Amino acid sequence: MSEYPSQILEQAVNQMASLPGVGRRTALRLVLHLLRQSDGDVQAFANAFVRLKSDVLYCRECHNISDTELCPICASVRRDHATICVVENVQDVMSIENTGQYNGVYHVLGGIISPMEGVGPKDIEIDSLMERIAGGEIKEIILALPTTMEGDTTNFYIYRRIRNLESGHPEAAQLKISQIARGVAVGNQLEYTDEITLGRSIVNRTEFKG
Amino acid sequence: MSEYPSQILEQAVNQMASLPGVGRRTALRLVLHLLRQSDGDVQAFANAFVRLKSDVLYCRECHNISDTELCPICASVRRDHATICVVENVQDVMSIENTGQYNGVYHVLGGIISPMEGVGPKDIEIDSLMERIAGGEIKEIILALPTTMEGDTTNFYIYRRIRNLESGHPEAAQLKISQIARGVAVGNQLEYTDEITLGRSIVNRTEFKG
Repeated sequence: MSEYPSQILEQAVNQMASLPGVGRRTALRLVLHLLRQSDGDVQAFANAFVRLKSDVLYCRECHNISDTELCPICASVRRDHATICVVENVQDVMSIENTGQYNGVYHVLGGIISPMEGVGPKDIEIDSLMERIAGGEIKEIILALPTTMEGDTTNFYIYRRIRNLESGHPEAAQLKISQIARGVAVGNQLEYTDEITLGRSIVNRTEFKG
Repeated sequence: MSEYPSQILEQAVNQMASLPGVGRRTALRLVLHLLRQSDGDVQAFANAFVRLKSDVLYCRECHNISDTELCPICASVRRDHATICVVENVQDVMSIENTGQYNGVYHVLGGIISPMEGVGPKDIEIDSLMERIAGGEIKEIILALPTTMEGDTTNFYIYRRIRNLESGHPEAAQLKISQIARGVAVGNQLEYTDEITLGRSIVNRTEFKG
């Protein structure tokens, strides 16, 4: 006999446990919680994911998840369309939007280059980024990728691709390429900051404006 | 504008975050994971819960979740049907079965008496337990409820109900009422107790003195 008293229950637990970071015991607890909800609530729970999968769109400009062909940020006339912030994923757009410090538009790569995970430049939205740049009107590209080896690799790859673009598109030479500041996080003690971050924060020190 | 770039995404996150212990950031991560799966996989994920809710049965004897009217444990001729282990929920049956120390049958209350949470004796399967006992042939009731105040309250309530049964059913006076040994640390849930402790607590069960 299986560990579970019911195959239907076991299948539901298997599905829940297929989510990353959800163990079998947690999955069972979540499934039994669902079982205590009304038929309508369980149906709404299930439908939300099927609907997301079937109906979701990706913005044709920035490739962010969107309900419309052009996402609200790309469609907004109040955003600076000459500045593109390149991020790994949807969560990063939300995080930067939450800071209230950015008024440009985005480009969501949908991943970063990772030879270890078999993700190459063709697997993420780099060609479409080059098309946007070749289309002209872009003044600055802000690289806001993770400060990891994969992030650095992707930054460098994009940098080279843009510089290669210059032969056919002389205006690309005017393009400013920047990356988000790396340094000691606000509120952190120096003694608990790793040596590489601390070292770079000294080398890349900025002018103090009192 | 909402925090989310898409209402469909937001609705999916809302549903995922309705699960207990799942915060909004985790919910977003899980939903975006689902979005990367195939249409068929997302459909299977959703269907599992709808099917569970619509098709699951509860054993007519012990009220455990079951695919059949009578669960495999209650249907087994190799189990001791004169011994009933009273537990709070499905997880507890699975935990006790995993110890391999118990050969009787179960009675799943589906909760415990909790005045704080508004759960009274009528809200859980106590009447049906009394019917099983009044039906005769039962020699022992093992109370295997959490070692919490609510568990103690429920133990005592069941004890009194059984003793009250004696007037109409003289054979109920012969009924042994035991409880799992207090090897289980006070305040702990059964499902989080290690198998050796839980197994011993069944073997070393003691008579319930009301």
